[in-house]
Amino acid sequence: MRMSGTAILLLSCPDQKGIVAEIASFIYQYDGNIVHSDQHTDVETNTFFMRIEWELEGFRIPREKIAQAFSFIADKFSMDWRLVFSDEVPRVAIMVSKFDHCLYDLLLKWQSKEIKMEIPLIISNHEDLRPVADYYHIPYYCFPVTPETKTEVEREELKILREYTIDTVVLARYMQVLSTDFIREYPNRIINIHHSFLPAFVGAKPYHQAYARGVKIIGATSHYVTEELDNGPIIVQDVIAVSHRDSIHDMINKGKEVEKRVLSRAVKLHTENKVLVFHNKTVVFD
Amino acid sequence: MRMSGTAILLLSCPDQKGIVAEIASFIYQYDGNIVHSDQHTDVETNTFFMRIEWELEGFRIPREKIAQAFSFIADKFSMDWRLVFSDEVPRVAIMVSKFDHCLYDLLLKWQSKEIKMEIPLIISNHEDLRPVADYYHIPYYCFPVTPETKTEVEREELKILREYTIDTVVLARYMQVLSTDFIREYPNRIINIHHSFLPAFVGAKPYHQAYARGVKIIGATSHYVTEELDNGPIIVQDVIAVSHRDSIHDMINKGKEVEKRVLSRAVKLHTENKVLVFHNKTVVFD
Amino acid sequence: MRMSGTAILLLSCPDQKGIVAEIASFIYQYDGNIVHSDQHTDVETNTFFMRIEWELEGFRIPREKIAQAFSFIADKFSMDWRLVFSDEVPRVAIMVSKFDHCLYDLLLKWQSKEIKMEIPLIISNHEDLRPVADYYHIPYYCFPVTPETKTEVEREELKILREYTIDTVVLARYMQVLSTDFIREYPNRIINIHHSFLPAFVGAKPYHQAYARGVKIIGATSHYVTEELDNGPIIVQDVIAVSHRDSIHDMINKGKEVEKRVLSRAVKLHTENKVLVFHNKTVVFD
Amino acid sequence: MRMSGTAILLLSCPDQKGIVAEIASFIYQYDGNIVHSDQHTDVETNTFFMRIEWELEGFRIPREKIAQAFSFIADKFSMDWRLVFSDEVPRVAIMVSKFDHCLYDLLLKWQSKEIKMEIPLIISNHEDLRPVADYYHIPYYCFPVTPETKTEVEREELKILREYTIDTVVLARYMQVLSTDFIREYPNRIINIHHSFLPAFVGAKPYHQAYARGVKIIGATSHYVTEELDNGPIIVQDVIAVSHRDSIHDMINKGKEVEKRVLSRAVKLHTENKVLVFHNKTVVFD
Repeated sequence: MRMSGTAILLLSCPDQKGIVAEIASFIYQYDGNIVHSDQHTDVETNTFFMRIEWELEGFRIPREKIAQAFSFIADKFSMDWRLVFSDEVPRVAIMVSKFDHCLYDLLLKWQSKEIKMEIPLIISNHEDLRPVADYYHIPYYCFPVTPETKTEVEREELKILREYTIDTVVLARYMQVLSTDFIREYPNRIINIHHSFLPAFVGAKPYHQAYARGVKIIGATSHYVTEELDNGPIIVQDVIAVSHRDSIHDMINKGKEVEKRVLSRAVKLHTENKVLVFHNKTVVFD
Repeated sequence: MRMSGTAILLLSCPDQKGIVAEIASFIYQYDGNIVHSDQHTDVETNTFFMRIEWELEGFRIPREKIAQAFSFIADKFSMDWRLVFSDEVPRVAIMVSKFDHCLYDLLLKWQSKEIKMEIPLIISNHEDLRPVADYYHIPYYCFPVTPETKTEVEREELKILREYTIDTVVLARYMQVLSTDFIREYPNRIINIHHSFLPAFVGAKPYHQAYARGVKIIGATSHYVTEELDNGPIIVQDVIAVSHRDSIHDMINKGKEVEKRVLSRAVKLHTENKVLVFHNKTVVFD
Repeated sequence: MRMSGTAILLLSCPDQKGIVAEIASFIYQYDGNIVHSDQHTDVETNTFFMRIEWELEGFRIPREKIAQAFSFIADKFSMDWRLVFSDEVPRVAIMVSKFDHCLYDLLLKWQSKEIKMEIPLIISNHEDLRPVADYYHIPYYCFPVTPETKTEVEREELKILREYTIDTVVLARYMQVLSTDFIREYPNRIINIHHSFLPAFVGAKPYHQAYARGVKIIGATSHYVTEELDNGPIIVQDVIAVSHRDSIHDMINKGKEVEKRVLSRAVKLHTENKVLVFHNKTVVFD
Repeated sequence: MRMSGTAILLLSCPDQKGIVAEIASFIYQYDGNIVHSDQHTDVETNTFFMRIEWELEGFRIPREKIAQAFSFIADKFSMDWRLVFSDEVPRVAIMVSKFDHCLYDLLLKWQSKEIKMEIPLIISNHEDLRPVADYYHIPYYCFPVTPETKTEVEREELKILREYTIDTVVLARYMQVLSTDFIREYPNRIINIHHSFLPAFVGAKPYHQAYARGVKIIGATSHYVTEELDNGPIIVQDVIAVSHRDSIHDMINKGKEVEKRVLSRAVKLHTENKVLVFHNKTVVFD
């Protein structure tokens, strides 16, 4: 269904009559062919959400003028909106520590084009995964972090991210808590994988917590990073059954399978512009 | 999200530009407020599908005139369409043999209004479940079936279904194969539950087949009944894990859980007008 | 696999060499035929767990003498143990408030003999579900509870539970917190269903909490009731996916399906003597 | 729970009294400490299955003499049995064509020691995946196959497999049907991944078959290869939901996730000696 050369409009606004008619007429009027459209109304807050995608071929507004042309409608309905194009490939930086399973899964899905993104660099606080980056010919920046150097290191990292014009940062089991300053530079554009079924087991060593509690299911949660630890908008969650037979070690291994699946799924949805954030929750048009 | 007093339009047609614009403008023009809209384009066959729902309150066409007003657009795009209203409660006949689990699940969800339908009658080829019908004060018609009487019995059943103005027939583990004549009276309006993950284990005794094959997962499939046995459009499927420890008896018990869940889900989707049939497949707008 | 007339031994003890040999030899020596055996060693605490089941037919110790004969071995290994017989049907009291879905599921599985138990009475703090009890000819005791009467009511309830020689109490969405005195009368014999994936969303209105947090999966947890609220040993958990499209009402309905499945599964495992409690966790031999 | 230095006995035999007692006493008599034991009785065929594992440390029979010592018991009960040691690492050859997802998943789990095996070589009928083998420093043998050369190629492959003293062959999406002669060399030691939920969609292009049938769930099946195509004993199966929104391309991508998970799981179980084959089914002691 995904075809090259489409425009994608993501928007939210107070719900009222006529929004769909106005948008669909705008597209039709300039000979656009809608290939996908999804919408949602949050009844509690009376908010309308939409993701609509149409072919650029034959559309009678040049792509660089579409935003301007649409802004009239956006203003009329007080929309929070963005326009993207399917051929703009997002530039994603991956941050890792020592675990490689999530990194590999992202690299393999990038390589097979299952996730369409560029990975201009990998950042780590350890040297361990440099050979992986080398194999894929991706620059690897290693910044050891201590409590003393953290502020300085983050400043360096942000500088590099800017140099590489990075859109999105993926924390693929990066075992450091980012500062508020860092997070504010990439609002709803830092994706983390937490190795528990949030909000169960917030914080450190969730598998150990799960083991101690004797749960029968463990999970993983990918979410946007916000200033409150492990409390950002959830994008994807998944789970796997465990039993008394599973040691902590077994739970960690089972969990890794879920973590990589959940993170890759979240990155795919995000890079395909299918996630809208609203009030610390997500609307996921999948 | 489901509110009382909406109009629901279900349609499919050859895809072309302007369909959404035309429909959304039609609704807006008469002051309709869209509360839900979902669409799909089948790229292979270039077919457009839509389910759109708007509030009747404030809509400036009286409900009995909407179909007429819309038929102009429908003709223009060669639509296969139907218009329903959310306050029209479908009239569903349940057919059973001796198993009660699917029947009970439907009755409980009907009683708790989780599935909005009327159940004017229950038909069976056995007396066993009459007390259940009595408890719920639902007329129970028992027609024992033999190869000799089958044609005659079906004629009687169809007569009663007509008398009760039944919209939809649910085969809740009804252990008889319906004749082509019967099926043709209710095209895409007879819902069956098959106790396997179709197309694995078509036909009789699927749990015994699954046990013999040594599968590690069993399932259930709800589908519309068509003339080809167990081959109609699939509405819902679900599965459950089994192991070498499960006897056939255990598999039957585990399977019952899945069967009732799958059948109730399919009946709910069908009665909420969320299922479109196309080329022996379904588009399910859930 | 379940056959009538078996003895079942459940035990835990410090792990050491020779336990299995001693138990198996004991059974063989008196001509017992083992039909099922499962064991587990908790490496952290060096604890051995076992559930072993053998046919009474042909066993050369009369059933009323087996415990005495076995106690020698039990003492030798400092076992915490119990001996039960598969033809002893547990007597289960169900406590409910107004929700009927878990109650019905238990009654249907009791009626179809999928769960082998007696249900001598149902206790409630409301009159609402009396007709259900009447239909199944089960005595229904209604004790409205207020903060003032709670102590007195619990005393009455315990008196009745004793009169009916109840083994196990099932809280099938009973919306009252039991006092410590009540709980101590039935250690690891009160089964509750909590309508969340514990330890996420402890306490009241978990679906509202889940909705507010924007989770993508909801769950249910059956656990033994201990003095610390919602913190007893977990027996069974299960989950279901939700999305931004699900209102709180939808989540409650989806959750009900999971709740009844999870509670019935826990009651089945408990009544089949397949659950061992150890350090606020369970070993479940399924 | 997995500790270095254990003996593992896998066996099946006609069920009779005293088997467990005899085996457990044998181990205890020579001061063995059982760390894991699992058993199963197939009631239909009256067959007993067991997997029992005990520590070699302190066991008073030297490892090279255990088989001889045990053979007396094995003969007495007419056992089909094998004795393995946990520190004997199985030697696994992987056969691939062009798809890399299963290969990568196996390599990553081998590298992280999640699956304990040696991978002395990779065989393919295409050159495509040679760089992957090179990166991991594993010899890569490429044998293009045509109908004319097939017999000769298989003879070469078998020769190499023998040279490398391979225990188990894993077909990680190897797109060739092996001949009966090849299969007979590795009875229940060739593991295949079939990209459907067998027995649904036997044969070629199962995702296309699944798409055409309009199923709502797709799956993958790992099984031992037998002479009848896609009909060998099933080791692991798993599934994933699909909908009308999924194109064949989407189904293939979703399926790849399931395939690699299912194949890796089967290889792990097999290499840990947890799978017993019996009458074209498996007993999996997990």
